[in-house]
Amino acid sequence: MTDDERAIRNLVETWMTASKAGDVATVLSLMADDAIFMVPGQKPFGKEAFRVASEGLKEAGIDGRSEIQELRILGDWAYLRNHLEVTVTPPDGGRPLRRSGYTLTILRKTAEGRWVLVRDANLLTEVPDSAAG
Amino acid sequence: MTDDERAIRNLVETWMTASKAGDVATVLSLMADDAIFMVPGQKPFGKEAFRVASEGLKEAGIDGRSEIQELRILGDWAYLRNHLEVTVTPPDGGRPLRRSGYTLTILRKTAEGRWVLVRDANLLTEVPDSAAG
Repeated sequence: MTDDERAIRNLVETWMTASKAGDVATVLSLMADDAIFMVPGQKPFGKEAFRVASEGLKEAGIDGRSEIQELRILGDWAYLRNHLEVTVTPPDGGRPLRRSGYTLTILRKTAEGRWVLVRDANLLTEVPDSAAG
Repeated sequence: MTDDERAIRNLVETWMTASKAGDVATVLSLMADDAIFMVPGQKPFGKEAFRVASEGLKEAGIDGRSEIQELRILGDWAYLRNHLEVTVTPPDGGRPLRRSGYTLTILRKTAEGRWVLVRDANLLTEVPDSAAG
Protein backbone atom coordinates (compact mmCIF):
# COMPACT_ATOMS: atom_id res chain seq x y z
CA MET A 1 0.00 0.00 0.00
CA THR A 2 1.39 3.42 -0.95
CA ASP A 3 1.44 6.44 1.38
CA ASP A 4 -1.35 8.02 -0.67
CA GLU A 5 -3.54 4.93 -0.37
CA ARG A 6 -2.90 4.80 3.36
CA ALA A 7 -3.72 8.51 3.73
CA ILE A 8 -7.04 8.10 1.91
CA ARG A 9 -7.99 5.02 3.92
CA ASN A 10 -7.24 7.02 7.06
CA LEU A 11 -9.44 9.84 5.77
CA VAL A 12 -12.35 7.40 5.29
CA GLU A 13 -11.84 6.00 8.79
CA THR A 14 -11.54 9.45 10.38
CA TRP A 15 -14.68 10.60 8.53
CA MET A 16 -16.66 7.65 9.93
CA THR A 17 -15.30 8.02 13.48
CA ALA A 18 -15.97 11.77 13.52
CA SER A 19 -19.48 11.27 12.10
CA LYS A 20 -20.30 8.79 14.86
CA ALA A 21 -18.97 11.24 17.46
CA GLY A 22 -20.98 14.18 16.04
CA ASP A 23 -17.64 15.94 15.43
CA VAL A 24 -18.79 18.04 12.47
CA ALA A 25 -15.66 20.24 12.46
CA THR A 26 -13.42 17.25 11.82
CA VAL A 27 -15.63 15.96 9.00
CA LEU A 28 -15.62 19.40 7.38
CA SER A 29 -11.81 19.48 7.58
CA LEU A 30 -11.69 16.38 5.36
CA MET A 31 -13.34 18.05 2.37
CA ALA A 32 -12.37 20.84 -0.03
CA ASP A 33 -14.15 24.18 0.40
CA ASP A 34 -15.66 23.65 -3.06
CA ALA A 35 -16.72 20.06 -2.41
CA ILE A 36 -19.94 18.96 -4.12
CA PHE A 37 -22.24 16.23 -2.80
CA MET A 38 -24.72 14.35 -4.95
CA VAL A 39 -27.63 12.23 -3.69
CA PRO A 40 -30.65 10.84 -5.59
CA GLY A 41 -33.61 13.18 -6.01
CA GLN A 42 -31.83 16.38 -5.00
CA LYS A 43 -29.73 19.05 -6.62
CA PRO A 44 -26.02 18.75 -5.84
CA PHE A 45 -25.08 20.70 -2.70
CA GLY A 46 -21.92 22.08 -1.15
CA LYS A 47 -19.98 22.23 2.09
CA GLU A 48 -22.26 24.74 3.84
CA ALA A 49 -25.39 22.66 3.20
CA PHE A 50 -23.48 19.59 4.35
CA ARG A 51 -22.55 21.45 7.56
CA VAL A 52 -26.14 22.50 8.27
CA ALA A 53 -27.44 18.95 7.72
CA SER A 54 -24.71 17.53 9.95
CA GLU A 55 -25.38 20.03 12.75
CA GLY A 56 -29.01 18.95 12.59
CA LEU A 57 -27.94 15.36 13.27
CA LYS A 58 -25.66 16.17 16.21
CA GLU A 59 -28.18 14.98 18.80
CA ALA A 60 -28.88 11.77 16.89
CA GLY A 61 -26.99 8.55 17.42
CA ILE A 62 -24.99 7.68 14.32
CA ASP A 63 -23.44 4.32 13.69
CA GLY A 64 -21.89 3.05 10.51
CA ARG A 65 -19.48 0.82 8.68
CA SER A 66 -17.54 1.35 5.50
CA GLU A 67 -15.92 -1.19 3.23
CA ILE A 68 -13.73 0.23 0.50
CA GLN A 69 -14.38 -1.50 -2.82
CA GLU A 70 -11.80 0.23 -4.97
CA LEU A 71 -9.23 2.97 -4.54
CA ARG A 72 -7.25 4.32 -7.46
CA ILE A 73 -4.64 7.05 -7.25
CA LEU A 74 -4.34 9.27 -10.35
CA GLY A 75 -1.33 11.42 -9.44
CA ASP A 76 -2.69 14.22 -7.22
CA TRP A 77 -6.23 12.95 -7.72
CA ALA A 78 -7.93 9.72 -6.73
CA TYR A 79 -11.25 8.00 -6.94
CA LEU A 80 -12.79 5.71 -4.39
CA ARG A 81 -15.71 3.34 -4.46
CA ASN A 82 -17.05 2.54 -1.04
CA HIS A 83 -19.90 0.55 0.49
CA LEU A 84 -21.54 2.17 3.49
CA GLU A 85 -24.03 1.11 6.14
CA VAL A 86 -25.31 3.96 8.27
CA THR A 87 -27.85 3.93 11.10
CA VAL A 88 -29.27 7.17 12.48
CA THR A 89 -31.18 6.89 15.75
CA PRO A 90 -33.30 9.95 16.65
CA PRO A 91 -32.57 11.46 20.09
CA ASP A 92 -36.26 11.10 21.05
CA GLY A 93 -35.99 7.32 20.83
CA GLY A 94 -37.79 7.14 17.49
CA ARG A 95 -37.30 4.39 14.94
CA PRO A 96 -33.68 4.09 13.77
CA LEU A 97 -33.22 4.83 10.08
CA ARG A 98 -30.91 2.42 8.31
CA ARG A 99 -29.39 3.23 4.96
CA SER A 100 -26.90 1.24 2.91
CA GLY A 101 -25.35 1.33 -0.51
CA TYR A 102 -22.44 2.51 -2.57
CA THR A 103 -20.58 5.76 -3.09
CA LEU A 104 -18.29 7.09 -5.80
CA THR A 105 -15.92 9.75 -4.49
CA ILE A 106 -13.25 11.93 -6.07
CA LEU A 107 -10.42 13.20 -3.91
CA ARG A 108 -7.53 15.52 -4.49
CA LYS A 109 -4.20 16.13 -2.84
CA THR A 110 -3.75 19.72 -1.67
CA ALA A 111 -0.57 21.73 -2.20
CA GLU A 112 0.27 20.81 1.43
CA GLY A 113 0.06 17.10 0.55
CA ARG A 114 -3.21 16.45 2.39
CA TRP A 115 -6.00 14.47 0.70
CA VAL A 116 -9.51 15.97 0.74
CA LEU A 117 -12.88 14.94 -0.66
CA VAL A 118 -13.87 16.96 -3.74
CA ARG A 119 -16.92 15.25 -5.30
CA ASP A 120 -19.16 12.58 -3.82
CA ALA A 121 -22.03 10.64 -5.34
CA ASN A 122 -23.98 8.87 -2.59
CA LEU A 123 -26.34 6.10 -3.77
CA LEU A 124 -27.46 4.88 -0.34
CA THR A 125 -31.08 3.79 -0.01
CA GLU A 126 -33.19 3.05 3.03
CA VAL A 127 -33.02 -0.51 4.34
CA PRO A 128 -36.56 -1.76 5.13
CA ASP A 129 -37.15 -2.78 8.77
CA SER A 130 -37.70 -6.38 7.69
CA ALA A 131 -34.10 -6.51 6.48
CA ALA A 132 -32.67 -5.12 9.74
CA GLY A 133 -30.34 -7.52 11.56
CA MET B 1 -12.02 24.15 -25.16
CA THR B 2 -9.19 21.59 -25.36
CA ASP B 3 -9.20 18.58 -27.70
CA ASP B 4 -9.77 16.30 -24.70
CA GLU B 5 -12.78 18.31 -23.55
CA ARG B 6 -14.18 18.29 -27.07
CA ALA B 7 -13.65 14.52 -27.37
CA ILE B 8 -15.49 13.86 -24.10
CA ARG B 9 -18.37 16.17 -25.05
CA ASN B 10 -18.61 14.26 -28.32
CA LEU B 11 -18.66 10.98 -26.41
CA VAL B 12 -21.61 12.20 -24.30
CA GLU B 13 -23.46 13.32 -27.41
CA THR B 14 -22.75 10.07 -29.28
CA TRP B 15 -23.88 8.04 -26.25
CA MET B 16 -27.21 9.90 -26.16
CA THR B 17 -27.77 9.70 -29.93
CA ALA B 18 -26.94 5.98 -30.02
CA SER B 19 -29.17 5.29 -27.00
CA LYS B 20 -32.10 7.00 -28.72
CA ALA B 21 -31.44 4.95 -31.88
CA GLY B 22 -31.24 1.65 -29.96
CA ASP B 23 -27.66 1.31 -31.26
CA VAL B 24 -26.30 -0.75 -28.36
CA ALA B 25 -23.04 -1.62 -30.13
CA THR B 26 -22.06 2.04 -30.39
CA VAL B 27 -22.87 2.70 -26.74
CA LEU B 28 -20.77 -0.31 -25.70
CA SER B 29 -17.86 1.00 -27.77
CA LEU B 30 -17.80 4.15 -25.61
CA MET B 31 -17.00 2.31 -22.38
CA ALA B 32 -14.02 0.33 -21.09
CA ASP B 33 -14.40 -3.45 -20.91
CA ASP B 34 -14.05 -3.18 -17.12
CA ALA B 35 -16.52 -0.30 -16.79
CA ILE B 36 -18.60 -0.30 -13.60
CA PHE B 37 -22.08 1.24 -13.31
CA MET B 38 -23.64 2.27 -10.02
CA VAL B 39 -27.34 3.02 -9.44
CA PRO B 40 -29.27 3.39 -6.16
CA GLY B 41 -30.52 0.15 -4.57
CA GLN B 42 -28.43 -2.23 -6.66
CA LYS B 43 -24.99 -3.75 -6.58
CA PRO B 44 -22.59 -2.18 -9.07
CA PHE B 45 -22.70 -3.96 -12.45
CA GLY B 46 -20.48 -4.24 -15.50
CA LYS B 47 -20.52 -3.99 -19.27
CA GLU B 48 -22.25 -7.33 -19.91
CA ALA B 49 -25.15 -6.50 -17.57
CA PHE B 50 -25.37 -3.07 -19.20
CA ARG B 51 -25.56 -4.78 -22.62
CA VAL B 52 -28.33 -7.16 -21.54
CA ALA B 53 -30.39 -4.31 -20.05
CA SER B 54 -29.88 -2.20 -23.19
CA GLU B 55 -30.87 -5.06 -25.52
CA GLY B 56 -34.05 -5.39 -23.46
CA LEU B 57 -34.86 -1.75 -24.22
CA LYS B 58 -34.25 -1.96 -27.98
CA GLU B 59 -37.95 -2.05 -28.83
CA ALA B 60 -38.75 0.85 -26.51
CA GLY B 61 -38.71 4.47 -27.57
CA ILE B 62 -35.93 6.34 -25.82
CA ASP B 63 -35.63 10.08 -25.67
CA GLY B 64 -33.31 12.15 -23.59
CA ARG B 65 -31.32 15.29 -22.98
CA SER B 66 -28.02 15.85 -21.26
CA GLU B 67 -26.57 19.03 -19.85
CA ILE B 68 -22.95 18.81 -18.75
CA GLN B 69 -22.44 20.54 -15.38
CA GLU B 70 -18.70 20.09 -15.01
CA LEU B 71 -15.89 18.45 -16.93
CA ARG B 72 -12.38 18.24 -15.53
CA ILE B 73 -9.44 16.68 -17.31
CA LEU B 74 -6.83 15.05 -15.03
CA GLY B 75 -4.15 14.07 -17.53
CA ASP B 76 -5.27 10.74 -19.03
CA TRP B 77 -8.28 10.68 -16.71
CA ALA B 78 -11.28 12.94 -16.39
CA TYR B 79 -14.42 13.32 -14.38
CA LEU B 80 -17.75 14.60 -15.57
CA ARG B 81 -20.90 15.74 -13.81
CA ASN B 82 -23.95 15.62 -15.99
CA HIS B 83 -27.68 16.24 -15.69
CA LEU B 84 -29.86 13.82 -17.63
CA GLU B 85 -33.52 13.60 -18.55
CA VAL B 86 -34.54 10.28 -20.05
CA THR B 87 -37.95 9.08 -21.21
CA VAL B 88 -38.56 5.42 -22.02
CA THR B 89 -41.79 4.63 -23.87
CA PRO B 90 -42.76 0.93 -23.89
CA PRO B 91 -43.34 -0.55 -27.39
CA ASP B 92 -46.86 -1.68 -26.35
CA GLY B 93 -47.92 1.93 -25.89
CA GLY B 94 -47.74 1.80 -22.09
CA ARG B 95 -47.12 4.77 -19.89
CA PRO B 96 -43.80 6.50 -20.63
CA LEU B 97 -41.31 6.37 -17.77
CA ARG B 98 -39.52 9.64 -17.15
CA ARG B 99 -36.35 9.80 -15.10
CA SER B 100 -34.12 12.75 -14.36
CA GLY B 101 -31.16 13.59 -12.20
CA TYR B 102 -27.42 13.82 -11.99
CA THR B 103 -24.50 11.55 -12.80
CA LEU B 104 -20.85 11.45 -11.75
CA THR B 105 -18.67 9.72 -14.33
CA ILE B 106 -14.98 8.87 -14.53
CA LEU B 107 -13.37 8.51 -17.94
CA ARG B 108 -9.95 7.48 -19.11
CA LYS B 109 -7.93 7.99 -22.25
CA THR B 110 -6.85 4.72 -23.85
CA ALA B 111 -3.34 4.07 -25.20
CA GLU B 112 -4.83 4.86 -28.64
CA GLY B 113 -5.93 8.30 -27.40
CA ARG B 114 -9.63 7.52 -27.29
CA TRP B 115 -11.72 8.48 -24.23
CA VAL B 116 -13.94 5.79 -22.68
CA LEU B 117 -16.28 5.67 -19.68
CA VAL B 118 -14.78 3.76 -16.75
CA ARG B 119 -17.01 4.37 -13.70
CA ASP B 120 -20.49 5.85 -13.60
CA ALA B 121 -22.71 6.74 -10.66
CA ASN B 122 -26.27 7.38 -11.86
CA LEU B 123 -28.55 9.16 -9.38
CA LEU B 124 -31.58 9.54 -11.65
CA THR B 125 -34.99 9.17 -10.02
CA GLU B 126 -38.44 8.74 -11.52
CA VAL B 127 -40.28 11.95 -12.36
CA PRO B 128 -43.93 11.75 -11.17
CA ASP B 129 -46.56 12.08 -13.91
CA SER B 130 -47.79 15.31 -12.37
CA ALA B 131 -44.38 16.87 -13.05
CA ALA B 132 -44.35 15.86 -16.72
CA GLY B 133 -44.30 18.78 -19.12
